Order: sequence, then C-alpha cells, then structure tokens
Amino acid sequence: MSGELQFHTSHGHYWASYSVENRRPDLAGFAVSSTSVYVCLLEGSTGATPSEEMNGTGNLMDFLDEPFPDVGTYEDFHTIDWLREKSRDTDRHRKITTKSKESYWELIKSLLDAWSGWVVMLLIGMLTGTLAGVIDLAVDWMTDLKEGVCLSALYYSREQCCWTSNETTFEDRDKCPQWQKWAELMTGHSEGAGAYVLNYFLYVLWALLFSFLAVSLVRVFAPYACGSGIPEIKTILSGFIIRGYLGKWTLLIKTVTLVLAVSSGLSLGKEGPLVHVACCCGNLFCSLFSKYSKNEGKRREVLSAAAAAGVSVAFGAPIGGVLFSLEEVSYYFPLKTLWRSFFAALVAAFTLRAINPFGNSRLVLFYVEYHTPWYMAELVPFILLGVFGGLWGALFIRGNIAWCRRRKTTLLGKYPVLEVIVITGITAVLAFPNPYTRRSTSELISELFNDCGALESSQLCDYVNNPNMSRPVDDIPDRPAGPGVYSALWQLALALIFKIVITIFTFGMKIPSGLFIPSMAVGAIAGRIVGIAVEQMAYHHHDWIIFKNWCRPGADCVTPGLYAMVGAAACLGGVTRMTVSLVVIMFELTGGLEYIVPLMAAAVTSKWVADAFGKEGIYESHIQLNGYPYLDVRDEFTHRTLATDVMRPRRSEPPLAVLTQDSTTVEDVETLIKDTDYNGFPVVVSRESERLIGFVQRRELTVAIKTARQKQDGVVSSSVVYFTEDNPQVAEACDPQPLKLRRILNLSPFTVTDHTPMETVVDIFRKLGLRQCLVTRSGRLLGIITKKDVLRHMWPKKTKLYYPKDLSAPPSDCK
Amino acid sequence: MSGELQFHTSHGHYWASYSVENRRPDLAGFAVSSTSVYVCLLEGSTGATPSEEMNGTGNLMDFLDEPFPDVGTYEDFHTIDWLREKSRDTDRHRKITTKSKESYWELIKSLLDAWSGWVVMLLIGMLTGTLAGVIDLAVDWMTDLKEGVCLSALYYSREQCCWTSNETTFEDRDKCPQWQKWAELMTGHSEGAGAYVLNYFLYVLWALLFSFLAVSLVRVFAPYACGSGIPEIKTILSGFIIRGYLGKWTLLIKTVTLVLAVSSGLSLGKEGPLVHVACCCGNLFCSLFSKYSKNEGKRREVLSAAAAAGVSVAFGAPIGGVLFSLEEVSYYFPLKTLWRSFFAALVAAFTLRAINPFGNSRLVLFYVEYHTPWYMAELVPFILLGVFGGLWGALFIRGNIAWCRRRKTTLLGKYPVLEVIVITGITAVLAFPNPYTRRSTSELISELFNDCGALESSQLCDYVNNPNMSRPVDDIPDRPAGPGVYSALWQLALALIFKIVITIFTFGMKIPSGLFIPSMAVGAIAGRIVGIAVEQMAYHHHDWIIFKNWCRPGADCVTPGLYAMVGAAACLGGVTRMTVSLVVIMFELTGGLEYIVPLMAAAVTSKWVADAFGKEGIYESHIQLNGYPYLDVRDEFTHRTLATDVMRPRRSEPPLAVLTQDSTTVEDVETLIKDTDYNGFPVVVSRESERLIGFVQRRELTVAIKTARQKQDGVVSSSVVYFTEDNPQVAEACDPQPLKLRRILNLSPFTVTDHTPMETVVDIFRKLGLRQCLVTRSGRLLGIITKKDVLRHMWPKKTKLYYPKDLSAPPSDCK
Repeated sequence: MSGELQFHTSHGHYWASYSVENRRPDLAGFAVSSTSVYVCLLEGSTGATPSEEMNGTGNLMDFLDEPFPDVGTYEDFHTIDWLREKSRDTDRHRKITTKSKESYWELIKSLLDAWSGWVVMLLIGMLTGTLAGVIDLAVDWMTDLKEGVCLSALYYSREQCCWTSNETTFEDRDKCPQWQKWAELMTGHSEGAGAYVLNYFLYVLWALLFSFLAVSLVRVFAPYACGSGIPEIKTILSGFIIRGYLGKWTLLIKTVTLVLAVSSGLSLGKEGPLVHVACCCGNLFCSLFSKYSKNEGKRREVLSAAAAAGVSVAFGAPIGGVLFSLEEVSYYFPLKTLWRSFFAALVAAFTLRAINPFGNSRLVLFYVEYHTPWYMAELVPFILLGVFGGLWGALFIRGNIAWCRRRKTTLLGKYPVLEVIVITGITAVLAFPNPYTRRSTSELISELFNDCGALESSQLCDYVNNPNMSRPVDDIPDRPAGPGVYSALWQLALALIFKIVITIFTFGMKIPSGLFIPSMAVGAIAGRIVGIAVEQMAYHHHDWIIFKNWCRPGADCVTPGLYAMVGAAACLGGVTRMTVSLVVIMFELTGGLEYIVPLMAAAVTSKWVADAFGKEGIYESHIQLNGYPYLDVRDEFTHRTLATDVMRPRRSEPPLAVLTQDSTTVEDVETLIKDTDYNGFPVVVSRESERLIGFVQRRELTVAIKTARQKQDGVVSSSVVYFTEDNPQVAEACDPQPLKLRRILNLSPFTVTDHTPMETVVDIFRKLGLRQCLVTRSGRLLGIITKKDVLRHMWPKKTKLYYPKDLSAPPSDCK
Repeated sequence: MSGELQFHTSHGHYWASYSVENRRPDLAGFAVSSTSVYVCLLEGSTGATPSEEMNGTGNLMDFLDEPFPDVGTYEDFHTIDWLREKSRDTDRHRKITTKSKESYWELIKSLLDAWSGWVVMLLIGMLTGTLAGVIDLAVDWMTDLKEGVCLSALYYSREQCCWTSNETTFEDRDKCPQWQKWAELMTGHSEGAGAYVLNYFLYVLWALLFSFLAVSLVRVFAPYACGSGIPEIKTILSGFIIRGYLGKWTLLIKTVTLVLAVSSGLSLGKEGPLVHVACCCGNLFCSLFSKYSKNEGKRREVLSAAAAAGVSVAFGAPIGGVLFSLEEVSYYFPLKTLWRSFFAALVAAFTLRAINPFGNSRLVLFYVEYHTPWYMAELVPFILLGVFGGLWGALFIRGNIAWCRRRKTTLLGKYPVLEVIVITGITAVLAFPNPYTRRSTSELISELFNDCGALESSQLCDYVNNPNMSRPVDDIPDRPAGPGVYSALWQLALALIFKIVITIFTFGMKIPSGLFIPSMAVGAIAGRIVGIAVEQMAYHHHDWIIFKNWCRPGADCVTPGLYAMVGAAACLGGVTRMTVSLVVIMFELTGGLEYIVPLMAAAVTSKWVADAFGKEGIYESHIQLNGYPYLDVRDEFTHRTLATDVMRPRRSEPPLAVLTQDSTTVEDVETLIKDTDYNGFPVVVSRESERLIGFVQRRELTVAIKTARQKQDGVVSSSVVYFTEDNPQVAEACDPQPLKLRRILNLSPFTVTDHTPMETVVDIFRKLGLRQCLVTRSGRLLGIITKKDVLRHMWPKKTKLYYPKDLSAPPSDCK
C-alpha cells in the first residue's frame, strides 16, 4: 500500500487498526494502485488543500482521529469482549513505553503506571481491612445492645465492658455489674419471670428494629446491596456489566445494612457480603487510575484481587481468600492476579490485625488449640459428617432455590419489607429461649470448636470431674458427661433443626446476607453432637475393639471440638462445593494445621455426596435462577451438536443482517441500526459472495455516522459507506461524498467453521471470553453465535436470559 | 443432503466427523443432488451389490471404519493439540454414556470409567507416598553411613540406632555406644588427629562412591533421570511429547540415584526430583486406563495432580503441593484437576505419615514452635532478608545458566561423570571440616529454624545463662551470646559462602538434583545470622528507640529461628519466583501459621527484587536454555506485529503446501509427504480460489493412503483423492477408482485473519493449546502459524527450538 494510507492509521486508537496492512498483495489479491484514486478524491472533497490534509493526522476521510467519547464502554447488562479489552490494554501499554523514552517526566509516569496495580491493591487492602474492623466492632456492640447496655460507657460491647471493669473474675468473664440487662436497668430485677419476659420482648423488638432499618435502607438507597453478592460478582467477573452494582452507594449502604442485618440475629453471616464490600472498594479505587477505569478487563483483575481481600478479612484467612477468589469467584485469573490478590489479602489482614477487633491480636477468628492427635478410626465419623454436610448442602440448595423461585413468581416478592420483618420476628421469638441460638452465631461456633479445658465454664464442658485429678490444665482425660452436657445436647439438637429450617428461608431476602456462618453453624452443631457421642462411647466402652488400640482409660483421646470443626467444613463444602480453599480457610480459621487430613476427607466426601444431587453449588444455582449470562467452567458439555445447529439465523429466520464493504449507503446503515438491536454487524465483500472481511460494533457505527454527519461535509443519506482498504472509486465528482469507516472495522473477527463441534465453541467462548463468534464455511459467512446463544443451548430449560426485573434500577447517583 | 450420505458418517470415530453436515444448503451453496451420483458409483466400483454395501457401516469409499492403529498418537518431540484431545475425550465419553443405557454391565463399566480418575489418584498417592518414605529412610541411613555405622543393626541410621538404645541420655541424643564412627570402629580411637583424618578420608570416599554410582546409573540406564525434571515436566504438561521421560526405567533409576545423590552430600535436594518421580508414577498408572493412556490431554491432567502429590510428600505439605502444581508447574489446570490434585496430595501425605520416616508422627518436615509473636519493627529485617533472597535468586539464575550454557557448548559436557566426581570431591573436602556443612542440609535447616529452648545442646544455643533463672522451659528471655554462638556465626558465614558457590555449579549436573533445599539452606543461614544480630542488638540496646516499644529487658522478644524461616522463604522465592505456594509450603513445613505476614512480606519483596534482574525463574530459564517449546503464560507480549508478519510462507518462500479438495492424485499426495516434513496440510477448494475447507494431519494421511493401497481395489497412483462431502463425479467408468478421505479431514481448523494482532494469536495458542493455526483473509488461505513460529517470534535470540542433542535417546525399553 502507499505510504499515505499507512500514515493515517499509524496512531491507531482501535484494536483492529494497525499500521501494517496488506503487506502481501501477491497472495491477497488486493493489488490495486490507490495513489491516483487518493489524489483524485482529495481534489473533489473538502475545501482544504491537499498539503493541509496531509499534515498532522493526514487523510481526509479518516477524520475520526480522536477516540469517540464512548468508545470502549459497554451498555448496561451487556457482556464485554475480553480479547478486545486485552488488546486495548496492550496498545495503551505500548504507547506509554514508547513515550517513556521521550523524557524523564514520561519515564516517571510510565513507572507510576507500572506500579499503579500494586498501589490499588494497597488501597483496597487498607480500606477493606478498615471496613471489616469497623463492621466487627459495630456488630459486637449492636448484638449485645439487644440484651443490655454497658453503664460505664454506652459504646462498649459486653466483652469490652466487663474487660475494662476491675470487678470481673476470671470464671465469669461475661458478667459484671457495669453490664446490665434491659430488665435489670428498667425494673431493677434481674431474675424472675417478669424480667425474662421483658428481656424477651426487648430482644425481639430490637431485632425487628434492626432488620426493618436494614431492609428499608436497601429498598430506598441501594437495591443492589441485598443478598450475598457473590453470584453477581461471579457474573461480573466473567465479563457482564451491571452498572452501579459495585458503586459507592452500594458500598455505603451495604456496609451499614450488613451491620444491622447481622445484629438483628437473623440466621446470616457477614462473610459473603464482605466480599461484595471489598469488590466495591476495588471498583472505587479503579476509578483513580485510567488504566483500570477505562478497561473492563483490567478492572476485573482488580476485582478478583479485591474478592480475595474480602475473604481474607472475613475469616482472617489471607491464603484462603486468595484460593477462594481463584476456586470460587474468579473467571480470568492469570498468575499476575494471583500475586496481586496475595498482596491485597495480606494488606487487608494486616490492617484488620492493626485494628484488632477481637481484642486478642490474632488474625484467626476461631482460634483453637487441641492437645491430642486424631486417630485413624476417627475417619469413620469424620466421613459420616462429610456425608451429612453433603446432604445438608443438597437440601439447602434445593429448598432455598425453590423458595427463591416462589418469591420471584408469586406475590411474596412484592412485599420484601414484610417478609424480612416476619422472618426476623420468627427468628427472634424462637431463638431467645435457647441459649445456643440467642447469642451471635460466630460466638456459638467459637464455643462449639473449643476444647473443654479445666477453666471452661460452658455448659458443654459440664463433665463429672475426677476428684483426685492432679494433672496439668491442658491434659484432661475423657470423663463421663454431666447433666449440663445432656441438656446442652438437647438444646443443640433443637438449635440444629431451627438453623436448618430458618436459613433456607433467610438467604436471598432483600438484606445483605451471607451463608458461610449459618452453614458452618449447622455443621458445627452436628459435629459437636457426634463428637460428644463418640467421646462418651469411647469412655464407657474402652474395651470395644475399635477403641482398644488408641483409647486407654484415663487418656484424652476424643476431642469433640475437632468434630465440630470437621462438621463445619463439611457443611460449608456441601453448600458452596469448595474444596481446597475450604480446607485452607478452615485451618487458617482455627490454626489446626495438624488436622488437614480429617478436614480434607470431610470436604471431599461432602462434595461427592452433594454433587450426586446436583452439580451446582449455591452460587451457581442462584446465577441460573436469575438467568445471568455466566458460562460456568465446571459445566460439562455433552450435546453432540455443531456450530451450524446453534448459530443464528436459523433456517426459518430471515438472513443475517450484514453490511457490504462498498455498496451500503448511510441510509441503509441507519435503517439497519434502527430496525435491529444486534450488538454489531458482520461486513462482507458483497451479498453475492458473502466472503467475510470484518465485524463492526453497533455502538461505534452509530457514533461514527453521527459524528460524520455533523462534522464532515458532503456526507448525506445516499453517501456510500466504505470499509475497504483502498479508496473508493467515485464515478463522477457530483456523487455524494463517501464515508470511509475502515478504522472502526474489526479486521480480525473470531470465526469458526460450521462443522466445529459446539463443545469446542463453548471452550473457545469460555477461555477467550468472546461476545460473539462468526460462523463460516470455506470463507463464506453463514451466521453468528453469541454468548447468549451458547447459554441458551446449554441451559435449554431456562427461559429468560436477561437481568431480573425485580431488581429495580439503582438511583441515579449510584453509578 | 441425502440420507445415505449421512448414514456413512454416523459412527464417526474422528473428531471432525459428525453426522450433521450441510444442513443449510441454501446458504452454503452446495445444493448438489448427489443421490444419482452415488448410485452410479456403486455400480462401477466394487464387486459387491448395492444392498450389501448399504448394510452396516455403509458407504463403499469409507472403508476406514475402524480407527487406524496409530491415530491419536503423536510423534516424539512434537506438540499435542489440546482441542483435538479434548474433543476425542468428549466423543469417548458420549459413546460410553450411550452404551451405558444398553445393559447393566455397560452401566457398571461407565461408572467404573467415571471413577477411574479418582482410582488413579488413589494409586498415585499411595505409590508416591511409599516411594517418598523409602527414599527418606534410605537417605537417612546412607548419609549416616558416610560417618559411621550402627553396631546393633547395620540398617539403622544414627538416630534410629541411638533411639533404640537404652543408654541414650536426653542431652546427647546423637551419641550412643552402639553408633560408632569409622575411625573408632577400625582403630579403636575416637579422638585425635589420626581418627579425624581417617574419618575425613572415609567421608570423602563414601561421597565419591555414591556420586559415581549415581551418575553411572543415570548415564547407562536412564539419561532422562538427571536434573530436577521440573523444567521438562512443565514443558510436557504444556503439551510436548518426550517419550520415555516419564517411563518405568526413569522412575526406577531416578528413585535409586536420587538416594545416592542426596547421600553423597552434594548441595542438592530431593524435592524437585520427587516431583519427577511422582509424575512417573502418574504416567505408570495412566497406562492402566485407556481413558488416560490414549488421550494425551487427559494424561496431562493426571500428571498435574501427580506433581501436586510429589510436592506434598517432598515437604509434607499437601495444600502447598496443590498450589505448587497450580502456580509453578501446570499449564492446563481446570477445577476438576484441582480437586483431584487435592485428593492425590492428601493420599500421598497420608501414606507417608503411615510410613512415618521421621519417627515423629508429624507430616511436617521442620516442625517449629515459637513462643513469641513478631513485632512490627521486625518487618524491616524481614524485608531486608527478602531483598537478599531476591539478589541470591538473580545471582543463582545468572550464574547457573551461564555455567550450564558453558557445559552445553564446551568440552565440559563431554565428561559428565568426571564433572560429578570433581564437584563431589570438592564438596566433600570443603564440607567435612565445617559442622554446618558436614551434616545433611535438611538437618542443618532444621537446626537453624529451631528456637533455643532450655534443653537445646546446639552450639547455636550457647547463650550466657542467668544463674537465678526460675522460668518455665519455654519462656527464656533474651540473653547475651556465649562464645559458642560467636564461633557458630563464623562457621555459618563460611557455610553460606560455600553453599552459594557450590550450588551454582551443582544444579544441572547429570544426576538427580533439586534446588529447594540448597536454596532454603542459603536463606536459613543468612536469616539466622541476621536474627542473632538483631537479638543481640535488642539485648544490648534496650533503650534504642526502635526496641523501646516492644522489647523490655528480661523479655523474649526476638526469635532468631523465625528469621531463618523468613530467609529460607525469601531465597526459595527468589530462585523459583513462587509466592502463594511458597508461603503455604513454608507454613505447612513449619506449622507457623502466625507468621504468615512476615513470610508474605519476604516472599513478595524477594520476587520484586529478583524480577528486576530478569523475569524468568530458574525453571523457565532452563526451559529457554534447552529450547523447549514452552509458551509461558507469564511472558508479556509487546511486539506490535500481525499474524501476517509471523505466518509461513514468508514473502521470499515458495507457496504453502496445500491439497485441493478434488484434484490431487494419490501420487501428488505421496510426493508432498515425501518432500516436506510438515505435520499437516490445509485443504482448499482449488488452487485458484484458495478457499480453505479443512486441515489434514500428515500422520493420518500417510496411514490412510497406505491402508487404501493395501485393502481397497482400484486405488492406484493416479487415483484422485477427494475431500468433498458429495461423491466425486467420475466421467468414465474406466477412470481409476477415486479415494475419498473426508473422514480424516478436520473440518474445523482454527483460523485467524491476517490482520489479527500477534498478541491475540499468542493468547489463543496459550489458552486453547493449539499446534497450528491457519491464516486467512476473506476466506482465502494465506499461510500457517505453528507453535514453533510463535516461539521463534517471541524468543528472537534463541536459535534452536529442538530438543537438546546432548540428552541421548533413552534405551529401547524405557518407554
């Protein structure tokens, strides 16, 4: 090609515009000498002299040298094109590298750009850690507020209140004169039926108040703040656009309502929502750097790392967070993101430790220290707990999805506030009488995980003590259970049933709600019950063959707390289908590195059992329920179809809407844009040969024509739109000025042949993150396959693939 | 199309043969009525009646109904096609699913097939764990054999010997009368210069014997058993074929020589080679199941999991193993493989625990228990250790690669046995006088990691004791260093220099050699030195502002062992550039979950510093050095080139070797195969239009023509080869019988346009694991890009891209 023509594309802003074009005229068959055509056109077009036109950015028809205002952005509820985003980033990177050689200032700018990724991670980590600390402190205080108040300082939680008091004895760490229950404060009596009823009433009232506030705030200010957010974040990370889902308003409201929701005593946790909060932080800091704010692909790398930071602070488990992001949440996770996630998780955990909300200087949420190893024979109850976890996971997913579907389709969905109020009321009324459900769920889990030391005052540790015991504190042999343990068992059994039922109805309501903690609670209760049973069996039947080898009388052989831990892992695994990240989170959570094998055994069993009832975990189920366009990497594709069976247009449909490279007029294009709602149009050589030359985005086409009509003289409805590389030949000077749009033409559209098996197509869509793919046969364009076509083909029964309408649009400033 | 024609492809064995063909004649322009042609051909071709021909598998020209014997296998030193392997597996899976509905037996077979993956993992885990246990025991025994022998039982190592003895006191666990040094045994004197020289001499002699045996065995029986194997395994996992590299012989010889090499006292570890051993086990068990043995893609999934099992037993770190496989080794790592790796690593760790080679029932190699937390100010020395680790990594890689290049290019490479002997001699002579280099490297690391308890007899713990100390054993305050510590510091400094220099020359010799342990030793020595320095500084200068806040007099504030741990992590990170897996391995190795933040800080710093000197870790550097065709996902591609610049043929070269769909004769094809060495040939409509219709593999073409010439009457050199869907029209009955080969035609070859930027092409090659990709423009075939072209383009300076010739071919039974 001539030098002039190369010139005008040498500053290419678009991914398909490169300076090197048609270097192989011999093979390509485009050996048209275009210089003369070019000069001819120069004369007949604008008022400028040729030399003016040749200066600067050059060619008269490619006036679109500056990027269009909106180019590179996507419409709401659309899918991004990963390859395109990646190319745009490489272009940007190249430009900076080239510039950096020009001056020291540019060099510094390029270094800043290279380090901006780490800076963003640092900021995300710090903000996420801080927010998590604040949430922890606020939840502690408000949970205790339901029962009483600290007289010495109103803003102290019970633990802080009694910790700062001098009158606290070691045995009764939870009781001190400064901390008064409401009944005591109001009537002066702390005992008796009247006081109990008053406390009961106020407990329920506070719970209702908190949950009402939570649901109202969500409804009014940020509808996207509800739920755990993980299904949506998975979808967003896979390349979907949901504007406002990670906005500032969502961040603010989700943080506040999360505190309210957890404090209200509902059966929900703060872990899932914390991931959403962290991703909002990530999105917030993305906007500081154009590298991330203007590139949806790069932004998603940051969000993946932010998700890791979220789990890191939710559990105090930085490594677990990175693995959770990798195994459960992320879609595109290059090694670079792994390292950055690692750094963000580290900073977040570190910040949280500096805030020290648990007051024990430990990162670990439920720190346990067991003193006995586990024995091979114990694998049997561990695996049984795994089976229980799998069954619970399957039951929970079925039940919860059925209930959520009912909510979407019946009148129930119309009254979210009422629903929350009713569920909170039921939860509070049923929870108060049982000490194991009255307290916060994380306290419950902590108690269940704990080994019974000599100083433990819990009812669960009410064993019959051997009077002549002279052992050190840590090494207490197995003992017969006392009456406290038996009554605790009954209460735990009731709590188990209550938690199982209420959690199914709670998850998915219009308040922030995570299910890590409720799932773990279910498992921990079941595990502790099994653990105590095994312990008592071993104590009373030392001579049984299974106990004989490892459990001598007077030895400490069974640790019921370990069973609770294994049970918690199994139930969490059953619901989420995590494996590696689950085990890592569990041992980071508890510090129990020695118990990796029991945890792994339970996690793998639980996954197998739950998978037998359905392959999808809870998050994937919610994604399917909501019809998000998410291509799960785990779905096995077993249809025996070809690209030709899936592509549009189908046999009965009208032919594909295409543009030709040199025979469509501006009016034709405008009509096509008006009549269809496709995201883009293939460009072919001619309607007869149907040989594909490229693909043009609807958005860019619209903007280009609009700009040309405004700025370029002579472009009228009858102007011909050209996508060819060589200049169009205009027969007569009076013909309307042609519009050359090669710059917005993607010259490397992704194509497959009509014989390509759909499994390969699905693989390509997943791995390359395509939006659409053109189907050809021997170079002839036959049709198009979009991501939605692929999803429709994979989920034949799911009807709608649009964003659910019951989530109304966010307020205008929530972007 | 007519039903008859659909019929003959309905049992398609090859990935591109599907029953649904040309459903859209309107768009495709192939609306030829072929039924009459078909019948005409039936009459003029074979002796069989039409009805006979129509039975069973039908068409007369598609006699190739049984798979060719070698189809689906690849040549040695070639790259596999991941998409094709995946498709073949899906086909296989579909066939089994269909069959499983036929009978109970088939159902059971399909269930067995579904579970075979887990069975393979179980077997791999068990064998790997067993081998690791045996290696550990043998290394222990043989390392001690260099110094002396156990009189009560010759097969006991020193520790076992003294452990079983009654006369061992707690203070001198390493000394007992049953264990005698060689001099004592031979001369009766255990002290004196003569005994020292004799012990020295025998130590060197044993070392030379072991290393000579090791290198000879490798040379004679399994040349592939040398080195760490990780670079090769990375390459194999990315899709390269190296036959025999994971064979039975390699497994056997590597296991034996690994023991010899480690026992010889060379500065090498057993961790890397254990990954190779585990992958050999994986390969071995793959051959039991046709699902894995016949599919190179599935086989690689198993190998990824086996690598995880290898690291799991090398360090007793199952989670770290999975992460190592993910971060460092694997190329294609779907979630399913993650779960399976997890399971294999679990079983392997469990088996190793059952064998219990360390005699302490712990999985953990270097178990440590520190009693003090770390303080914020300590981050400064930790980060300095990170910097040291990064510098060491950069130095090691540069030095080692330079030395290995010299070995490849000079006479040095011709005498591998001599090289090993000389290095062993130097190592043994220099190592014996220094107590820190004389013992095995893992013992050294273990001692460096250890905190100085009250009972510690090590020279490193020779602190000046406070006489009126009445504290518990665990809580020893900081004390001034005694003379033993100072002399230990000197010896450690000498050991550090020795290890740094000798490791550079050791790694890469023709014996099994890993570098995890030497790297960790370098870091641990440096870390311990820094730790003691900080400790003494804090003791003597309590009033300095940096110590004031956290280090009161009489408190235990600095743990030198923790510094050793951080230093080890930093150095290992600098060499391998691991981050997440490194930290996980380190805390699984030591049980130090509380020290995640220091470890992470050191790992990240070390990576940053080392990356500043060169992006590649040691394994990638060795891959580049050897010219393996490995597409690193980490390499950033910044060239600004298009597919057209990279594709073959270049402008000056002859045109691409193509076949036409219906005008090439058998002779033409045979000439083409003889004259070229391409892996396959594109098939076009005609030489004039150059419209691409498919791609045919060289191997399959060769086999198909050979089979046809033998079995099918009438196929002669002048027979026309047809790739069309409809039957060829033969003008006259006397024309030679045509040969139809559509079944071996891949109808969905991967294409990109000539304008596709190379970064996209590289991305596609990486993510989809392609072997080649055709370049088209508007449906016209322009050229081809192979993986080698891509690599040549990315590594412009690297010359050869073939397998190195200095590794001679394995013996014939080593497959």
